[in-house]
Amino acid sequence: MKKTIRGFRPIYPTPAALISCISKTDVPNIITLGEVFNISIGKPLIVGIAIRKERYSHGLISDTREFAINLPKRDLLEQVDYCGAVSGRDLDKFKSSGLTQVPASVIRPPLIAECPVNLECRCISIQEVGDHDLFLGEVVKTHADESILGPDGTVDYAKLETFCFMFHYGRKAEYWSIGEKLSDAFFMRKKLSQ
Amino acid sequence: MKKTIRGFRPIYPTPAALISCISKTDVPNIITLGEVFNISIGKPLIVGIAIRKERYSHGLISDTREFAINLPKRDLLEQVDYCGAVSGRDLDKFKSSGLTQVPASVIRPPLIAECPVNLECRCISIQEVGDHDLFLGEVVKTHADESILGPDGTVDYAKLETFCFMFHYGRKAEYWSIGEKLSDAFFMRKKLSQ
Repeated sequence: MKKTIRGFRPIYPTPAALISCISKTDVPNIITLGEVFNISIGKPLIVGIAIRKERYSHGLISDTREFAINLPKRDLLEQVDYCGAVSGRDLDKFKSSGLTQVPASVIRPPLIAECPVNLECRCISIQEVGDHDLFLGEVVKTHADESILGPDGTVDYAKLETFCFMFHYGRKAEYWSIGEKLSDAFFMRKKLSQ
Repeated sequence: MKKTIRGFRPIYPTPAALISCISKTDVPNIITLGEVFNISIGKPLIVGIAIRKERYSHGLISDTREFAINLPKRDLLEQVDYCGAVSGRDLDKFKSSGLTQVPASVIRPPLIAECPVNLECRCISIQEVGDHDLFLGEVVKTHADESILGPDGTVDYAKLETFCFMFHYGRKAEYWSIGEKLSDAFFMRKKLSQ
């Protein structure tokens, strides 16, 4: 039986990601976001992130129009949670979290060394969408740690330890792991063409 | 060691979702999408979906400006894959997939009965973003099956069997389950305030 419920952040699963950015005066910052997603998946490669106006990183990315998406491994859970709990207005999160900054190739914000995937992004638009602002970013460079790549040079999902951010109203939020492979996709395409 | 890799749909995890829509002549359709995400998480509640221009559902939703997001359970894996493999131009996917349509409360497209979460959406904008078009939708009604709700009436993630769609170039795509709870979120906020 279905019930009508109060809608709040209803899409699952969604990732927990660390976004790195930098101020006009070259002070780097990190924000943890759950609103991070693929939009244009090939050429051009465009992703979206959504940030509340009051967040410190909102101002930094609006100013500099560059950011990096760093996908964490499970062992960075504490740092991921920490970077969502404190504000870069008050302290240097790279220093206080222990995360290591490494220079990006193309953009000014640093990347997070401990994250196995780093996406360098240039902001192509900023728009108000309800209680968040949507930043569309073109991915200008994609870095991946060799340890998560398969023999064909693409990401091996079995080695990828990104995790989910789940959240509903009442501020009940949880981190969940990715589980196991259920099947290859597009299997019905093969079946139907037989 | 990091390598620069070819970027292709680089954000993980992302959901596999069934989008229901309807033609101007009242013929319903279903499309499977991996580009489905939260943007404005409270009031208003706004989600995004991204669809390639050439897909049949792109035209239907552009015409009617209504759609429903139906989050599947794991036992719908075959139907999810099927609805991404065939086109509604050629056949009625509700009939051929065996999925059951039920009337929505507010919008014209039907909901999918077998999916434990159904979001009725009204399109508020359509914009070209690279190789996909981004449809922003205000969620005007949220339905959830009682079987996935906890005692407080919100979604119990342990009962939620939505799953991930993972995809990289070379058309290697896979479905993965959600795993286990790693921790409550915002735990550092508590720790820091002690």
